Amino acid sequence: MGLLYRETYEVPFYESDTNHYMKLPQLLALALQISAKQSLKLGIGDDIVFKRYGLVWVVTDYIIDIERLPKHAEKIVIETEAKAHNKLLCYRYFYIYGEDGQKIITISSAFVLMDFKTRKIHPVLDDITSIYQSQRIKKVIRGPKYHPIGDSKVKQYHVRYFDLDMNGHVNNSKYLEWMYDVLDLDFLSSHIPKKIDLKYIKEIQYGTDIKSHWYQDGLVTRHDIIGGDAIHAQARIEWQEKKED
Amino acid sequence: MGLLYRETYEVPFYESDTNHYMKLPQLLALALQISAKQSLKLGIGDDIVFKRYGLVWVVTDYIIDIERLPKHAEKIVIETEAKAHNKLLCYRYFYIYGEDGQKIITISSAFVLMDFKTRKIHPVLDDITSIYQSQRIKKVIRGPKYHPIGDSKVKQYHVRYFDLDMNGHVNNSKYLEWMYDVLDLDFLSSHIPKKIDLKYIKEIQYGTDIKSHWYQDGLVTRHDIIGGDAIHAQARIEWQEKKED
Repeated sequence: MGLLYRETYEVPFYESDTNHYMKLPQLLALALQISAKQSLKLGIGDDIVFKRYGLVWVVTDYIIDIERLPKHAEKIVIETEAKAHNKLLCYRYFYIYGEDGQKIITISSAFVLMDFKTRKIHPVLDDITSIYQSQRIKKVIRGPKYHPIGDSKVKQYHVRYFDLDMNGHVNNSKYLEWMYDVLDLDFLSSHIPKKIDLKYIKEIQYGTDIKSHWYQDGLVTRHDIIGGDAIHAQARIEWQEKKED
Repeated sequence: MGLLYRETYEVPFYESDTNHYMKLPQLLALALQISAKQSLKLGIGDDIVFKRYGLVWVVTDYIIDIERLPKHAEKIVIETEAKAHNKLLCYRYFYIYGEDGQKIITISSAFVLMDFKTRKIHPVLDDITSIYQSQRIKKVIRGPKYHPIGDSKVKQYHVRYFDLDMNGHVNNSKYLEWMYDVLDLDFLSSHIPKKIDLKYIKEIQYGTDIKSHWYQDGLVTRHDIIGGDAIHAQARIEWQEKKED
């Protein structure tokens, strides 16, 4: 078990969707911010990792299990721990608790350290993981196998200026926006995700047009984000009917 | 002078742009959230206004004066007051203070109360304005005259699912995104706004394609957001060169 870090957060109006739930891309962005804050507090912030080792953190996978989504104005607690790592991957967990104290969302994420110059994955450094009291494991935790989604529908999106974050990269949370946006409004108004598997494969540059492919089979949707000939991200989303309060 | 309300806010990573400044659409969204919180605290939240009078607040104009933009991780203070009103318009001010205590941004905004059923503007109610200790004035504060921008460039945008807020409307801050996004990346990387006049004219519905027209004359850009034949919003932005820290 790694060191725990937690913060409370009140879901603002502008991060709430038409269902009065917190927008999921915002929740992912917030989770990343909370993990960055833990790193800062432990004296191993992103700038230190970069200056000392020339490395940057890159998220590669999310597995998101959702009991229910946070509501507008709800005071949630986000808890995180850098729990375990193997030779190349670090596994960080986020637990979201509702105002009623119940755990409502669990996010399992995998991170790698990338060499900023060579853009290659660097083996995990014990000097870093020890600070979080992360446990060394041999196991590689695997997400689902993603198959090509074949006879899919497709919609084009242009990367926008405000999609870029401080590093000049397309913010991770934007991919999920392109995956959601292709779905039918009636469906999105009556369903919330139950489980999301999301895999990041390749960065997207500014000025790129990307294609959001999707295929829906009942309560399961599958998504490919494609730019040029390359797949940049893939997802499988299992949906559940929205419960009335 | 109206009652003052203030909150501190730390600019998160995911609200910071490639220049390491806070994204301006996020700042506008945050300002609205702070004003909603003042209303809640005074017992006259949006839900009360709706239930008691059948009215909703609609922002019609912003005048934004910018000395500098908040930086990533800066702890800013946002202060607001509902300062004055005339028969139809309420004038609310936002003052943003940097971590150094200096006032870095002033936002003057105009709001109207709209009848939710008839979609018509309703005269300001003393029962509401008195709670904020807003001062009754006769003057109508006018923004600039917006001329048709004529021989303009144009880029099309599609309203996305996550552009919608809790009310099912396109969030106000999105308009500014469409105005920014048409400009050249090199220009946006070397300039920040000095003064923004922004006028909202007509709501945009989900599923609409909008056209972002712009015209640039040196350090001044002018913008029309057009859907179908109607102008939905207009802006004039005066830019300044980014200062190195």
